[in-house]
Amino acid sequence: ETEAELLTYGSEQAYVQKCMACHGEDGISGTLQYPNIRGQKAMYIEAQLKAYRAGERLNKLMQSQAVALDDRTIKAIALYFSTR
Amino acid sequence: ETEAELLTYGSEQAYVQKCMACHGEDGISGTLQYPNIRGQKAMYIEAQLKAYRAGERLNKLMQSQAVALDDRTIKAIALYFSTR
Repeated sequence: ETEAELLTYGSEQAYVQKCMACHGEDGISGTLQYPNIRGQKAMYIEAQLKAYRAGERLNKLMQSQAVALDDRTIKAIALYFSTR
Repeated sequence: ETEAELLTYGSEQAYVQKCMACHGEDGISGTLQYPNIRGQKAMYIEAQLKAYRAGERLNKLMQSQAVALDDRTIKAIALYFSTR
């Protein structure tokens, strides 16, 4: 799957909109406790979502979001925000 | 202590240089696994450093850095990179 295809898949995904609810439409969060993810390293975003999903990184809200994500969607979300 | 005083303290601190070794001089890391911290929310940076220090967030390298930091230095580091 090319990056372009993954990006299209990511942007069509409801998950990207879910991330935006807390992390901001452009990945700059409007809440001081929530990190900006705009331009963040894709590999880092991916690793954190997997860590939340696996319960290796503890945060109730993020874990509740991450458990629903498969690897492809995680990659698409990471690619999407890292390229904002 | 004013933000300006904390910023001066932070920028003089060797710790800021230590952070730069992995996170980049301007907070944009040169390593794909290491997150950018430039312009990141100060409150988030502070919370993560405290979580590493307390062992609530697990990462050997970051824990080894964070255990040496007192609250004031953590605040100064967070202020420094959030204002890059």
